[in-house]
Formats: sequence, structure tokens, C-alpha cells
Amino acid sequence: MDHQKEYRLRILSQNKTITANEEDLLADKILEAGINLSVYCNKKGLCGKCIVEIVDGKLQPLDEKENFFINQKGLDKNYRLACLSKIKSDLSIRIPEESIIKEMSILKAGIKSPLLVDPSIKKYHLQLQKPEISLPYSLMELMESKLTIRKLIMPLNLLKDLPHIMEKSNFSLTAVMFNDNEILNIEPGNTLDRSYGIAIDIGTTTVVVELVDLNSGESIDYLAAMNSQLKYGSDVVSRITFAFSDPKNLDALRNSILNALNSMIEQILKKNKIDPSFVYEIVIAGNTSMNHFLLGLPVKTLAVSPFHSVFTCLSELSSDDLGFKINKYGKVYITPNIKSFVGGDISAGLFASDFANRNGNYLFIDLGTNGEIVLKTKKRFVATSTAAGPAFEGMNISGGMVALPGAVYKAEYGNRLKLFTIDNKPAAGICGTGLIDLIAIFLDRGKITSKGAIVAKTKRIPIFGKIYITQKDVREIQLATGAIKSGIKMILQEYSLKVEQLDGIFIAGAFGNYLNIKNSMKIGLLPKIDEKKIIFIGNSSLAGARALLLSSQSRKKIESLVKKIQYISLATKPLFQNYFIEALEFKN
Amino acid sequence: MDHQKEYRLRILSQNKTITANEEDLLADKILEAGINLSVYCNKKGLCGKCIVEIVDGKLQPLDEKENFFINQKGLDKNYRLACLSKIKSDLSIRIPEESIIKEMSILKAGIKSPLLVDPSIKKYHLQLQKPEISLPYSLMELMESKLTIRKLIMPLNLLKDLPHIMEKSNFSLTAVMFNDNEILNIEPGNTLDRSYGIAIDIGTTTVVVELVDLNSGESIDYLAAMNSQLKYGSDVVSRITFAFSDPKNLDALRNSILNALNSMIEQILKKNKIDPSFVYEIVIAGNTSMNHFLLGLPVKTLAVSPFHSVFTCLSELSSDDLGFKINKYGKVYITPNIKSFVGGDISAGLFASDFANRNGNYLFIDLGTNGEIVLKTKKRFVATSTAAGPAFEGMNISGGMVALPGAVYKAEYGNRLKLFTIDNKPAAGICGTGLIDLIAIFLDRGKITSKGAIVAKTKRIPIFGKIYITQKDVREIQLATGAIKSGIKMILQEYSLKVEQLDGIFIAGAFGNYLNIKNSMKIGLLPKIDEKKIIFIGNSSLAGARALLLSSQSRKKIESLVKKIQYISLATKPLFQNYFIEALEFKN
Repeated sequence: MDHQKEYRLRILSQNKTITANEEDLLADKILEAGINLSVYCNKKGLCGKCIVEIVDGKLQPLDEKENFFINQKGLDKNYRLACLSKIKSDLSIRIPEESIIKEMSILKAGIKSPLLVDPSIKKYHLQLQKPEISLPYSLMELMESKLTIRKLIMPLNLLKDLPHIMEKSNFSLTAVMFNDNEILNIEPGNTLDRSYGIAIDIGTTTVVVELVDLNSGESIDYLAAMNSQLKYGSDVVSRITFAFSDPKNLDALRNSILNALNSMIEQILKKNKIDPSFVYEIVIAGNTSMNHFLLGLPVKTLAVSPFHSVFTCLSELSSDDLGFKINKYGKVYITPNIKSFVGGDISAGLFASDFANRNGNYLFIDLGTNGEIVLKTKKRFVATSTAAGPAFEGMNISGGMVALPGAVYKAEYGNRLKLFTIDNKPAAGICGTGLIDLIAIFLDRGKITSKGAIVAKTKRIPIFGKIYITQKDVREIQLATGAIKSGIKMILQEYSLKVEQLDGIFIAGAFGNYLNIKNSMKIGLLPKIDEKKIIFIGNSSLAGARALLLSSQSRKKIESLVKKIQYISLATKPLFQNYFIEALEFKN
Repeated sequence: MDHQKEYRLRILSQNKTITANEEDLLADKILEAGINLSVYCNKKGLCGKCIVEIVDGKLQPLDEKENFFINQKGLDKNYRLACLSKIKSDLSIRIPEESIIKEMSILKAGIKSPLLVDPSIKKYHLQLQKPEISLPYSLMELMESKLTIRKLIMPLNLLKDLPHIMEKSNFSLTAVMFNDNEILNIEPGNTLDRSYGIAIDIGTTTVVVELVDLNSGESIDYLAAMNSQLKYGSDVVSRITFAFSDPKNLDALRNSILNALNSMIEQILKKNKIDPSFVYEIVIAGNTSMNHFLLGLPVKTLAVSPFHSVFTCLSELSSDDLGFKINKYGKVYITPNIKSFVGGDISAGLFASDFANRNGNYLFIDLGTNGEIVLKTKKRFVATSTAAGPAFEGMNISGGMVALPGAVYKAEYGNRLKLFTIDNKPAAGICGTGLIDLIAIFLDRGKITSKGAIVAKTKRIPIFGKIYITQKDVREIQLATGAIKSGIKMILQEYSLKVEQLDGIFIAGAFGNYLNIKNSMKIGLLPKIDEKKIIFIGNSSLAGARALLLSSQSRKKIESLVKKIQYISLATKPLFQNYFIEALEFKN
């Protein structure tokens, strides 16, 4: 047997000591020790981010690549690249803070779901050797050998520009790589400090654009607006109907959202003084209909039974093909749809909440026009969607409105009805969370029966000014609540789980921020459970998009999760109708 | 230890008996036995091409996939797909002829260089399950599950058409795949019988287009024409100069060859009644300048020292981006350049002649305006190019012409000079091979000295009509011959090889067909060697393009070979000038 020499590696900064064999790569050993050493370039000696200080012990002599980075950073010869260093003796090292990737928190809400920043888009600064007559390497070969890639993939138009870029930059250039094997662009000089991406959440009602620094992983700014498609219909079904009524309408929907997004992108970049050419990727989370509209995909399959989408997982698309005004060689990733109307907003939300990796049984609920519900048991994932209708968005309600300034979002009753409006603006209408509070209060006070009948002969309850809760309004809330309630019941029953067996319920959506848990339980919207188990995660769709922008590995994970999620069509379950009718009663 | 059951597999048709373990895949065992079983779909049960007859023994019951193909072909239940069959007992089988891939001969010249047809473009006929409300798979998922691919890559425009195609074809469709992971197109119904490709050789002087059946691997037809760029210059250097003189000129060169090729493609397809939409790939072999012009790449780096190209190996490009009029989702593969002016015509020629796999020492010589020479020793490959000038193409010669009908391509001397013209047309001029014969004859007859001086005081030798060999003509031939001769000498010397140690010399190019070996040796163009070792391989560039069209594996091989080939720049070798001056003498 061939016995290798064994050495001791002390990592003083982390106070860890491990053993290593002769010729082991220092970077590998540090990673094995559970330290998040930055190996941005996959240990190719291209990024110079894995610098460590050698306190004691010997390594091979510095090579040209190492010298380049050590000199560039003005460090002394005790500093080495861990990805180029092979162990040849006992070593004591210190790892500078800058060489360790910080874990980002995906959700701002504070629940733990850390992320290591490792984007699809990476930049490397290359100082190429000029070709010589004795070794007339092609321009592509020069780059391939520096990048240690056998065969680069490069757009034809960039190839045409290559000789000019090389000459202009005197062979000092920054390669913009996609997934470390495709060259998206070549920027003259060193532009490592300028690398940006954009995360987008396209909701049926609102749209949020977030500008992200791909180097630090930090969010720089964000911008929210109403979905410009609202003029074509306030909910998904009306927009799908609109798309059908004339072949040109799909284009209208597509152009409307595309132009709105482009103008938001332009605005946020201008505000932050960033040139669009330094933005190379957009990740978009949206529900199935929203992503179909954006891509200009026919929605007929979504409109008629069996209600299925055109795509599930898509490879990254060209930003130019799609019409986005970022770098013309940029990419767009659409978060994967799960099934039917359980779309990319939900997959992004599941990813953001680290749903797949939690121990125990969890529910993920997105309360919107469609109520999407995903259950995770110890071994399985199952999703369903239930047509709650737009009542929770304040639609189809006599005095309803969306959650905008002036909307009554909260109501309390001490000795009289007390209303709270968004931004403290004069009350203009009632949004979803306000409606839930009001129904709960009137149930409590006996003004509405548990069957939903308004006791007063007028069949309406005054709220403020000329705004009332009418009998029809109560029926709308009953239907919406009943859809969610029976959906939850059905999905739990399908896997023989009781509510008590749940370890947590994630509530996604802006809606969640204002939702009163007690009142939601009182009307039956949420099941009776320890309140601590209810976790509001805010706009998890946007958070997921940002996480997927920052980590290419995440995309593989979410795509693999999506394929594992089973689907229950409530419409095909005979029991569901019974549950739904039972669930119309306001109780728990 | 876990002992597996061992069974005996008799392959009656090939008279082979091998052993197999329980659960071994029948297809794997047949391949291991050295039989070229067709596993077109990579053993995924998608193509039904690996059918075998079970004469004796048992397999698992027929599954749905097998049934589909067995029924389609009207076979009885003894016929099975070898790629879906696991061995569970002793077996005796017969393999029908149709299940074995025939080896194609790459070179028509007859030297052995067999090829197994396995194109990049493959078609699979799929009968998809329609989505159901309980399992609302997306359209892409339906295809992914049938093709057993995790995540299909598909053009956005095709994705937009997908719902319509699915509906129109009632879920019976033909997927056109590229490298088995990218969907290029989806054709309604079963179009397996229509799959074509085009191989193209772009020479500086002539262009050949060949139509190939991707199913059988057979060549259907070909078409040759003069290179339409001749109007911009007869040789590479003059075209490069033209490209420089105005920025629009590169476009002119590109459009000229592109339009000419498109019109040749249109003509050959029309003649053979093939719709262009059934052509999905073009493979193009051309020298470095020709492929740069075609792609519209700047040629400045080719024009000035150190004379290097923009690219070496390129991934397949979009036929639509390039402007080729085949299927809009088609691909174009450009054969790789080696170095400098040793381009894709040479790499294709090396592949066609199976150069890399021959035992011994070989030379590959392409005699043209540039003389490209590649040496293969037992372990190494080395290439060089030498500027022979256009004399061998009949250019810069007072009575010269290219090898077209009417050109004197051969001369003999019995008791008088006897001239032979191409197609027996009236003599119009002299082409390269004719010049070589004439110089050899006049050397023999003492009309020219070995130093190249015409003895006659007139300093010219009459040939026919008003056509003479002038002193300047002899000098041109001397220079051309000297360039090749010294190039060969230099490359052999670099690897300490003597001419006698060569096992063969491949002569490529249309030129080769008419070349008189004895005369070529007499003037010193070819080294003195056993004539049987000189092998004319004709248009090996086109043959290589065809081979690369028919086999995706070949592309990997040629790209890997190209990276192994070292390059000698003759200009940097001080000895070369001496050799060249010595080589100007007509002798061997």
C-alpha cells in the first residue's frame, strides 16, 4: 500500500486543526473544515478571492498567477491563493475576513434561510499574452487558455468585436462569464467592481423591481408599482379572457408589462447611477399567467380544462430576445412553475423560506386571488391552488379597494369600531385584511351569524361615510375563506395530517404583513394552531428571485424541488365539494 | 461477496458467444461484443432501431415503449428492443441487418477511414399523453418525460408555437434534437424519413456543396462552382487586402459567398425535391480566411504579423443568425482552424484521412496557394504553412489558367510534346499540373537548367498557339516548388525524421488527381520516396465536412486533435531561408 505523508493544518483564525495529506489542495481542506472560503472561480486561480496568510510552514514557490494577485493587492509573500497551494508540510494559516463568503439572509422577515453568494454571472479580469509569430494562438485560444476552458461559447456578434476589443484594451480585459462556460461579453480593462443584476416580482396587482450588487450580494434599491396590465383586467381570469378576445391582445399584455418593467429598470438604474450595460441578469418570479404573458406565450392551455401551462422550467433566455433594456448579451431567468396556477412566485417563495430543508411538517400559503397552498411532510411535497376570488384583494366588495394608502387595513372594537388606514390617509375603502377584521368583529358582536347572514333587517352594516358591509360582501368573504379553508383541510387530509401535527405555517404575500392572526382563525381562514407557528414571510416571491439571482446552484435546487412537488387538483376530489360547503361557515 | 448469476448470450447472426450477468442490458452486451448495434437514441427506447430477435431464452415482459415499436413494424413478440431488455436467462439471439449501423467510407478515394453514422441532429417521433386535470403537466414536461430529459433547451419562438403544434398534431409529433439535449424544432406528425444536412467545402477558387441524408448517411447529390469572391481577388492575400481597403468590403465578401452558397443550396434541394425546412445542419470546411470572410469576422489579425486567427474551435452557430436558408432553427458547424493559415479545410482533411489514428509517420500536404503541411510522428503532430503563391493554380503564369475545361493539365514527351486538356476541350491555357509536367520535360530535355534558366536565347519555350513558358513563369514555379520542398524538409528535420522513415504522404486537393508523381519528384516538389507511399485523397476537405456532419462524436475528436497539433512558423526558423534558397534548384 502507498502511504501518503500526513500533515497538520492549523487554521488559527477559526481555531480549527485538521489533518491533510501531501499534495492536498489547501482550498479543499479549508472547505472540508466547514469554512466558507471564497472559491468564486471554482479554484481556477482566476479571481484571487481565496487569499490566506501562511503563518508557519512551507508551500511550493509562488507562481505567475499567484504573483499577479498578491502584487495587485499589495500583499507580502506570506499571502497565498489557497486554490493554487498544495500542502507540503505542517501549516498554520490565518484566513482574512475578505476571503470568507458571508452568508446572506434571504428573507428580511428574519427567519433563517442563509445563502452563499455564487451568481451565474461572474467577471474575471484577464491580462492576456499577445500572440507571437512562433505561437500564433487565435484570440479565442488566448482566452480559453487563460480561463482554462476547452471550448468557449461566445455570441457571433461578440466574436466579430473581439479583435477590436483586444486591440483597444491592449489585451487587458474583463470576461463576463455565464455559468463559467459561456462568455457573455468582454469589457475592455478591469470592470470587476461593476456587476449588477435585477430581481423582479410580477404580481397580478403589484410589481416590484430590486437592484442587486452581484459582487456583494447586497440589495441596492427597489421600486414598486401597480401592474400596468390592470387596465386589461384586475384578476388573472379577466386578463386571460382579454388575451383570447383578439390575437393582438396577447401582444398588448406582453408589451404593457415589458415596457413598464423597462421603465422601472431605467428609473432605478438612473437613480443609482449605474449604466444598464453593467446589468447582465434579471430573475423574474411571477405566477403562471404573469410569466406566460411576459414571454408572449399563448394562454389557451391555462384558460380551459385541464388548465396546464406551456412550460415548467426554462433555461435562461436572452435579455435582448425578450426586449429587456440591460446589456444586450444579458440573460433572463424565469422562476419555474410548479403546476397549473401554482407558478413561479410560489416556487421562489418556497426557495426563499428554505421550505424544502425544514424538519417536520409545514404549510406554505399564498393568499391572493388564487390561494396557493403547499404542504411539506417529512418526505413529500404537495401543492394545490384554490380559487379564492378577488375578495381578499378588496375586489367585488361594495366598499372594497386594494391595499393602497387610505385603505382600511385593520379594525378593532373596544367600545366602538376603530378603523386604521394605510399611511393614516382618510379612509377611502376597505382592503382584504380590514374586511377580515370587520367580519370577525361583527361575528363576535352577533351582527353576523356563523352562517354569514347579516342579522339587521337592512342587510347591511355601516362602516364609515357611505361605506357598508353588505350581505353580498359577506358572501364574497365566505366564498374566499371557504376556498382556502377547505383547500387546507383537503391537502392535510390527503396526507392524513392533523393541524396539530404542523410545525409551522408560512404566510406569503404583502397581505400577510397586516393579517390579524386571531381574527383569521376566528373566521376560519387559518386553522386553529399555536400562534407562534404562524410565520409571516412578506414578499417571499421577490426574496426568492433575489436569491436565485445570487446563486446559480439555487436554480438547480429549485428546479429539482419543483419536479418533486405533487399536485392535487381539488376539482377532481369529490370530497372537496363537501368540505367547501362546510367551510362556508365562519368557524374553526 | 455478492455473486451475480452468469448467463450465456449466443449471438447467432454473428456467430459469437459471450457471458453476461443477471440484469445486464442486452444492448450493452451486444456492443461489448464489438457489434455495431444501432443505439441511435442512446439506449432510451426512443428510436426503435436496436430490435433483435430472441430465438431462445426469456426476458422481462414487453413494456409499453417496446410494444409501440414492435407493433409499428408489424413484428411478432419474439422481437425486442435490446436497449430495454435485461438479461434474465441464457439467451440466443439474431440481430437483423437493419439493427446494425453500416460503416460509411469517408473518402471516396478508397483508403480506409470508416465512420459510424451518429449525427448531431436526430429526430424522434413522440406520441404524447394529453394532460389531465388530475395531472396537469406543462407541455414542456410532457416532452421532457417522454424524452427522459430533465430540462429541455428550446428556442423561445418555438415555445410560443408549441401549444398550436401540439393541438394541430393531436400530440403526435417529431422532435428534432440537437446533441440529444436541445430541441431545435417540433414537426407535426411523423417526419422521421426526412432529415437532411449539407456539407460545404469553401476553397479559395472553388466551392462544393453536398447534400447528405442524415438517416442513411448517404450522399444524395453535389454541386460545384467557382468561388464567387474571385471577383474580389484570385488569392487569399488579395481578398484580405480588399477587405481592408474599405469597411464595407468585408460585408461584400461575406454577402458574396453567403448568397452564392444559398443559391447553390436552393438549386440542389429543388433538384432533389427536398424542402429546405427539412435541412437542419450545415458543416463548412474552409481555410482560415474563407471561414473568417463567411462569418464576417475582421481579418486584420490574419493580415499582419503574427498572423493569427480570431477563433480556433467554434460551437455550432444558428443558421438563421448566419443567414443560411435552411430550417430557421438549424445549426452551422465550422470545422476548426489549426493555427494561422492552417485552417478548417486542413482539419477536415486530417479527419477524413483518419490521420490521427494511423500507425507510423505520415505527411499530409495540401498543395494550393498556401501549401499546408502536417506531420504525424509516432507521438506528435506538427503543422506549418508555406506561401507557395498561386503558380500551382495557374495564376501569375503568362499562359496559366485554373483547372477548368480547356486547361492543359498533363503533358508527355515521346518524340514530340503531347498535351492533354481537361474535358478534351481546345487548349486555352496551362494549369498547375500541366506546368509541373512541362517543367519536368524541359529539364529532361536540357531546355531548362536545374537552376531554372531557360537555355534558349529567346528565354521562352513555345507550348501551343501563342502560349509560351517564359523565364518569369519558370521562376514562379521555382518559388512555389521551393516553398513546399523546403517546408517539407524543415518539418521533417524539426523532428529528426528522414524521408525514408515516412510511411505515407497524403496529397489533398483536386490538384492531386492530376499530379504526375514522377515529374513532381523530378522537379523536387515531392520528396523521393516509394511511389506507393504517395496517396491522393482528393477533396478531403469536403469529405471531412461530410464526416463531421454525420457524426457528432467526430467533432469532439477533431477539436481535440486540433489542440494537439503544434505549429512551426517557418519565418522564425533561421535555417528555413537557407533551405528555401537550396530548394529553388529543380532537383531531388
